[in-house]
Amino acid sequence: MCQLLGMNCNTPTDIGFSFAGFSKRGGLTDHHTDGFGIGFFEGHGMRLFLDDKPSAQSPIAELVRNYHIKSKNVIAHIRKASQGCNALENTHPFQRELWGCYWLFAHNGQLKSSFNPDFDGKARRPVGYTDSERAFCYILNEIRARFPNKPCKNSLFDALAELCAEIRAHGMFNFILSNGEVMYAHASTLLYYITREYPFGQAHLIDEDLAIDFSKVTTPEDRVSVIATLPLTDNENWQQLACDELVMFEHGRLVRRSRPENPVYLSREEGLEIARKAGVSV
Amino acid sequence: MCQLLGMNCNTPTDIGFSFAGFSKRGGLTDHHTDGFGIGFFEGHGMRLFLDDKPSAQSPIAELVRNYHIKSKNVIAHIRKASQGCNALENTHPFQRELWGCYWLFAHNGQLKSSFNPDFDGKARRPVGYTDSERAFCYILNEIRARFPNKPCKNSLFDALAELCAEIRAHGMFNFILSNGEVMYAHASTLLYYITREYPFGQAHLIDEDLAIDFSKVTTPEDRVSVIATLPLTDNENWQQLACDELVMFEHGRLVRRSRPENPVYLSREEGLEIARKAGVSV
Repeated sequence: MCQLLGMNCNTPTDIGFSFAGFSKRGGLTDHHTDGFGIGFFEGHGMRLFLDDKPSAQSPIAELVRNYHIKSKNVIAHIRKASQGCNALENTHPFQRELWGCYWLFAHNGQLKSSFNPDFDGKARRPVGYTDSERAFCYILNEIRARFPNKPCKNSLFDALAELCAEIRAHGMFNFILSNGEVMYAHASTLLYYITREYPFGQAHLIDEDLAIDFSKVTTPEDRVSVIATLPLTDNENWQQLACDELVMFEHGRLVRRSRPENPVYLSREEGLEIARKAGVSV
Repeated sequence: MCQLLGMNCNTPTDIGFSFAGFSKRGGLTDHHTDGFGIGFFEGHGMRLFLDDKPSAQSPIAELVRNYHIKSKNVIAHIRKASQGCNALENTHPFQRELWGCYWLFAHNGQLKSSFNPDFDGKARRPVGYTDSERAFCYILNEIRARFPNKPCKNSLFDALAELCAEIRAHGMFNFILSNGEVMYAHASTLLYYITREYPFGQAHLIDEDLAIDFSKVTTPEDRVSVIATLPLTDNENWQQLACDELVMFEHGRLVRRSRPENPVYLSREEGLEIARKAGVSV
């Protein structure tokens, strides 16, 4: 299943527990993924691991599982082989620099051919052949046209909300975007989040019989939000984003949302059915 | 010792042998590096491994040694701790996208504070604090200003030659640059290359007692050029670039050079002395 995972925290945090469950989802039954990517912001720098190979054969997946990189902002994406072209240049998340910050973007969905921005002469252009990278480059070019220098995060939120409304008219557009300071997430169909903070409790993964007592590995000041296509744990209260909702996380908490007036929430089955009809691998 | 390594080939090639010797150079006596980076072009995609930690403690260095990624264009950079700030955002090689291609850049040298381009409103800006990343972003902004769309490689060579002359007036500017198709290398002080092609012979590393018989691991059509701050093997005929020379490699061979009329070649000792005086870690 092609899925998104994001983490935004107020202190550098190891995403190991969430990634353990998330990475099981690549093939559901055979427990491997075909291609995955995970990017970690570290200070102003960024470390991006991409692989177009099944994780069972990939030393990179092994590295990510064993190398406990701590980060305040992480974005990951997995997919299974039936999704199509596995070239490295088509592997999410995509990375660019804008205003002297790195940006990471991962997309779950499918934009129709009616979404066809003109990149001639533009500062940022897709390297690969995905609708996802086209959307990412389009967003960066558009926000740079509006803001030659870095705007405040709320002005950026407003601009992103407008761009999301424009782009989602062309298809399914669930995404996670971060510049290492804040994390934006937009739902067309299925996207959930949870915020973990003091008092911390236990969590048990859905995809693997693995539990953790966060109270034993945290301090009272820690705060972490995790965003995922579908909930990763079965004993916590995940919140669903409404269809067409854009949210912003900062320091581990949701700080702004642009929810439609009459919010619609899809069931898991409805969301997966829309994805199937759109030709998105599930 | 802070050093550069580049490889340009006509067929995807494993850089393992050269990297084995190169990576020994980080600390000379204690055989570890403090921070390194290596980027592999794979198709149109790119895989960049960065680490700001000593390789002895870094699973990423281990991964690179064991994961035999084959690539036509590879750029690597190592340094030792005394060089200063080890933050990930200051680790070479640096990556950007221009004209729908990824670009990699690694620098050995030091540009004085007189090199101080204005990045306000510019499309590409440094994320970290190195003179190297400033030079890279400046080059990309300048060539995009001259060529809104991708020019032919020879027009680009001419533009780069002009920019090199401008930038090296500010200090020591040895670098390797690639867009995955061709590889450019510029020498201020020390930079060597070797082209290996049929009939292939044996090579023996200087930094480790390791030899390889390339005739046993190649086909007659293979061609590989390796570029390094100092020769990596002691039984091959490495060619030195002249001071202020820019060269271009394609399909594993040197295809163009802009050599000064009265070329100057520094000895290893002279080159290292200049680096020491410039405050570049050696």
